[in-house]
Amino acid sequence: MIKASIIGATGYAGTELARLLKHHPGVEIKYLASKSYAGKEFGELYPNHSCEDFVLSNIEIEKICKASDIVFTALPHGISSETVIQLNEYDIKIVDLSGDFRYNDEVLYEKWYKVKHPSPSLMKSAVYGLSELYKENIKTSKIVGNPGCFTTCGIITLYPLIENDLIDHETIVYDAKSGVTGAGRGLSNALHFCEVESNFKAYKIANHRHTSEIEEKISIAANESVYISFTPHLLPTKRGILGTIYANLKDGVTAEDIQKAFVEKYNNQPFIKLLGENKTPELKHVVGSNSLITGFVVDKRLNRLIIVSVIDNLLKGAAGQAVQNMNIMFDLDETTGLNTDGWYL
Amino acid sequence: MIKASIIGATGYAGTELARLLKHHPGVEIKYLASKSYAGKEFGELYPNHSCEDFVLSNIEIEKICKASDIVFTALPHGISSETVIQLNEYDIKIVDLSGDFRYNDEVLYEKWYKVKHPSPSLMKSAVYGLSELYKENIKTSKIVGNPGCFTTCGIITLYPLIENDLIDHETIVYDAKSGVTGAGRGLSNALHFCEVESNFKAYKIANHRHTSEIEEKISIAANESVYISFTPHLLPTKRGILGTIYANLKDGVTAEDIQKAFVEKYNNQPFIKLLGENKTPELKHVVGSNSLITGFVVDKRLNRLIIVSVIDNLLKGAAGQAVQNMNIMFDLDETTGLNTDGWYL
Amino acid sequence: MIKASIIGATGYAGTELARLLKHHPGVEIKYLASKSYAGKEFGELYPNHSCEDFVLSNIEIEKICKASDIVFTALPHGISSETVIQLNEYDIKIVDLSGDFRYNDEVLYEKWYKVKHPSPSLMKSAVYGLSELYKENIKTSKIVGNPGCFTTCGIITLYPLIENDLIDHETIVYDAKSGVTGAGRGLSNALHFCEVESNFKAYKIANHRHTSEIEEKISIAANESVYISFTPHLLPTKRGILGTIYANLKDGVTAEDIQKAFVEKYNNQPFIKLLGENKTPELKHVVGSNSLITGFVVDKRLNRLIIVSVIDNLLKGAAGQAVQNMNIMFDLDETTGLNTDGWYL
Amino acid sequence: MIKASIIGATGYAGTELARLLKHHPGVEIKYLASKSYAGKEFGELYPNHSCEDFVLSNIEIEKICKASDIVFTALPHGISSETVIQLNEYDIKIVDLSGDFRYNDEVLYEKWYKVKHPSPSLMKSAVYGLSELYKENIKTSKIVGNPGCFTTCGIITLYPLIENDLIDHETIVYDAKSGVTGAGRGLSNALHFCEVESNFKAYKIANHRHTSEIEEKISIAANESVYISFTPHLLPTKRGILGTIYANLKDGVTAEDIQKAFVEKYNNQPFIKLLGENKTPELKHVVGSNSLITGFVVDKRLNRLIIVSVIDNLLKGAAGQAVQNMNIMFDLDETTGLNTDGWYL
Repeated sequence: MIKASIIGATGYAGTELARLLKHHPGVEIKYLASKSYAGKEFGELYPNHSCEDFVLSNIEIEKICKASDIVFTALPHGISSETVIQLNEYDIKIVDLSGDFRYNDEVLYEKWYKVKHPSPSLMKSAVYGLSELYKENIKTSKIVGNPGCFTTCGIITLYPLIENDLIDHETIVYDAKSGVTGAGRGLSNALHFCEVESNFKAYKIANHRHTSEIEEKISIAANESVYISFTPHLLPTKRGILGTIYANLKDGVTAEDIQKAFVEKYNNQPFIKLLGENKTPELKHVVGSNSLITGFVVDKRLNRLIIVSVIDNLLKGAAGQAVQNMNIMFDLDETTGLNTDGWYL
Repeated sequence: MIKASIIGATGYAGTELARLLKHHPGVEIKYLASKSYAGKEFGELYPNHSCEDFVLSNIEIEKICKASDIVFTALPHGISSETVIQLNEYDIKIVDLSGDFRYNDEVLYEKWYKVKHPSPSLMKSAVYGLSELYKENIKTSKIVGNPGCFTTCGIITLYPLIENDLIDHETIVYDAKSGVTGAGRGLSNALHFCEVESNFKAYKIANHRHTSEIEEKISIAANESVYISFTPHLLPTKRGILGTIYANLKDGVTAEDIQKAFVEKYNNQPFIKLLGENKTPELKHVVGSNSLITGFVVDKRLNRLIIVSVIDNLLKGAAGQAVQNMNIMFDLDETTGLNTDGWYL
Repeated sequence: MIKASIIGATGYAGTELARLLKHHPGVEIKYLASKSYAGKEFGELYPNHSCEDFVLSNIEIEKICKASDIVFTALPHGISSETVIQLNEYDIKIVDLSGDFRYNDEVLYEKWYKVKHPSPSLMKSAVYGLSELYKENIKTSKIVGNPGCFTTCGIITLYPLIENDLIDHETIVYDAKSGVTGAGRGLSNALHFCEVESNFKAYKIANHRHTSEIEEKISIAANESVYISFTPHLLPTKRGILGTIYANLKDGVTAEDIQKAFVEKYNNQPFIKLLGENKTPELKHVVGSNSLITGFVVDKRLNRLIIVSVIDNLLKGAAGQAVQNMNIMFDLDETTGLNTDGWYL
Repeated sequence: MIKASIIGATGYAGTELARLLKHHPGVEIKYLASKSYAGKEFGELYPNHSCEDFVLSNIEIEKICKASDIVFTALPHGISSETVIQLNEYDIKIVDLSGDFRYNDEVLYEKWYKVKHPSPSLMKSAVYGLSELYKENIKTSKIVGNPGCFTTCGIITLYPLIENDLIDHETIVYDAKSGVTGAGRGLSNALHFCEVESNFKAYKIANHRHTSEIEEKISIAANESVYISFTPHLLPTKRGILGTIYANLKDGVTAEDIQKAFVEKYNNQPFIKLLGENKTPELKHVVGSNSLITGFVVDKRLNRLIIVSVIDNLLKGAAGQAVQNMNIMFDLDETTGLNTDGWYL
């Protein structure tokens, strides 16, 4: 049994992670640590949660590390890097769900996060945890920087298209719509029920941090700098991300070429479902599951590709991918503990 | 008092129109006609509606026209054109809410609607009822083809940019999100509460009819054919459209140029609210009102413009604009009966 | 023109009140005062609100009173009573939306509100603003204690039944369900979108303050102390209250007797809609309007009456009734500025 | 492995049942049969469902029975009884999710369902599948009549109180609120998204069929006829039932007596969670799980008990309890395949 702990277990990502680990047949949870709620039972915050009887512990690094094979950190950026630096002293695996270990380039990180990274070298040593793309590196990594929710959806969709040089880099638009859990559990007027219900809005247009994370990864695929328009929107739902991605096709590229690129890249990936041409997924097809589903349309009038991809932001976009990465790191079947399907109803 | 009647009064657009006309200080409603519900009281379908005591009448053209100064038709396309041909025999004004009188070019209409138009000449004689753009023509028109909901939002936003040659025509993306009333009152599994709630999806990608309506009008502004990507999505809300529009700026075009074009076009238009640069509206700011609110961001990294515009699909996108057009046709203040503000809560 | 001001204009009730007063043909708004937001434009908080251009002012009692014929206070209880004591020094009318001036009996108030009332005599001099029941007193009052939302729905429904001795006082259950605006604009984890959406719960069972307000008023009708079970629940909607009320019928009482009692009491009341036997209202029939709609079923198997009543908690349950009371106090038609119907869609 | 089939697999209850059986470690699904969709893949209706690759089969009784150890029928009442009569010819277990096998008394059934039962003797031979109350009988039964959703919530809550003579039978009120999946997948204007969203209503007041099902079972516990007020309401959510139950306490009965009765009855029942006095559950605590959670308040002013109970209508109220009953019939641990916890988010 893998002994696992979570630091920052009471936020939305941490809570989902606790649920997944509790049901995972190869995992024993050792500590659920929380700065704000240490000493309380998990069930006081989340009644009828499978971890409801757990008593939340303090964030005592040594105690946690000595009892654990893997520690997940689900903390705000900045705080997370400081914590991971301490965790790194111990012989454990680490999956960090913040933005602090997702970049190769600390200058890029510091530009978009507006903080200095306390250990650029540790950041560079971490592996980017987009399971389908970096599986081999994840296997042997000590620290995984678990990807952001919007970035998971965006990169998985764009990577094979760029790698195979099928789309015009100057024309990429990623119009994304996310449920409210993506904004976290913190209080703000903007997340009051009466503000969100029956409402819809764009936010952080042209300056959301996930832009840089997507661009760094697809630029690697392109062997050149690629910049995209990324516009997140807030849906009046709790969960799920739907991304609508637009790009002009390179001359002569056909729908078959698109589908071939997707199939070659993802055919054996258990969590990627390819609908092919002229069929696109809905948010509910994926909420509750660790899958990404994608389908596309080629608008021949414009020689433009429109792709729709969906994920559950808390699963494939956060806690689910974290467990998938753990499975890879510990040489388990990648789908262990993640075989739930979408909650259609 | 203007004597007004509605044919097709029980659909969602017709119902809103009845509400607006009932409260309009210069209007007396003569007939609310309905094929399906003739003989019933309006309040049986819509309790506590201001027209609840009205008995729905049959669609008897002669009777309705003789009693009315203006007749609104809120019927399915195809049926609407046949009805308007009959209405046209009488000395009345007509505002048609279907797609049947929105086009100059019947070939375009027939291509996208897949039906033959029964009177292309009557179609050509109609004025396109986008109030802010065609006010002078609307004043003297007999038949107004009231615009579609997505098209109202799209054309108002794009027109001044194209007219002033500020954006690259090859790069226009209109990613639109609409509430469910836009799909109408008809029954289908896709509109069952359990299908829509907590869900989100794109539909009719690259083939929604409103694409052609937008393209015809902005092509006139451009003096050349302009084609766009238009992707509608279904929000789990009842009302409202939010459009996110992307286009690359022509060389040297600045945010100031964008704002200047909007201000010159819309400064005196009571229902157009310009937020300017770096401020964008939310759906709730406009639900319940006849306004269109728009704001934009220039992403200098990409020299790309991102505009967000919102309308209430049932008001500025349908019944509200129909009343606005009536006000113009009868030389009333354009805002009469339309001075409600957004229902923030 | 009545010169009106609001102290506490930015909470949900204050905001709705500002909207109603702005559209009221006999009112000129003088001050919208706010402790938290003085100096800001109203539109910064509520874009596209009809008062968006108003600059929120400080709570300066003298300045406000000298400019106003009537001042509405929409403040937390305790704070409200202190403010009204100051307002009372001026020759103005006052409508207080808090619980501070709703009781005859300060002992009852202090028991349920757990605070000492600073002026029991002023409280006693105030008139309870349930417009339909106390119209004559409201006309000549200086201070109106505007009723609570649950209480308005409960008292209007129960009063004629108790006054006519039709139901068994020992068996009254008022199971109420309210939208989230009833809980106000303040931040709390319980009002986070992700807590409320798709959720439903009872709260403050057997100890909600409105219990005492209902009991005081219906006890007067009964000429004896009447106690009820009142259970509020939180609906995942923004607006509206639906109350399901149960009581055993006194021997021999029929459905006709029930209907007769309602008709005699409310037949000429413009905002009370009586559906009669075997027809009950839905929440949406009333959201957006100042009406209360009620209908009932007699379960002959049990000789029990089940009544369903609905109101919009922000209108008839707060701001709408406040305007109705103002109309009565200033001898205007009671419905002035309140003739909106339900927003069905 | 238990070989299981479902007849009527595409309704909401059938769909959830298919999901549960697919993940059940002791079950192999043989047939998913559907009158309307035979020949289609399950995934065409429910993409990303764990049974998406299953081809829906025709309702061929012999073929299905010969391949199955257990057949679940999720069909409309009336149709279900005819089908079960045929299934009964084979050596299989049957769990029927309709109302057709829930009653002892066919007169009662026929009065409330307005149809004649084709085999009252078979109905009498069936065991009522309220797992916690009839476990011993379920073990050896051939046909289980799986309880209704409202009835499961109501009976589990009321049974120990009545059995122990703690409440006054003349004063029982069960005010229930259900998500829309309870109304099924069939189309009707009342279930259109725009009708349900932001709405709330009571329906079938004093004449919902589940009234009779509850009354039959609690009358057995009482050894006399007990009649109750049962009022269902429709929540704007997809899943879940919250019941608020009122009853006057018999003289001298205390909160401790109430809790004792619950504990004695349900202490070892894995799916019943007892919160005790002054703590009540929310809908979200149970959606996604097979649990019933209950808590209560004693209002000493009235000597009245108020209990709040919640279940997931599709799980404990339908498909989950059906699986629980199968587990009992096949001597598996009762919780097998049902250990999911609530979906808090």
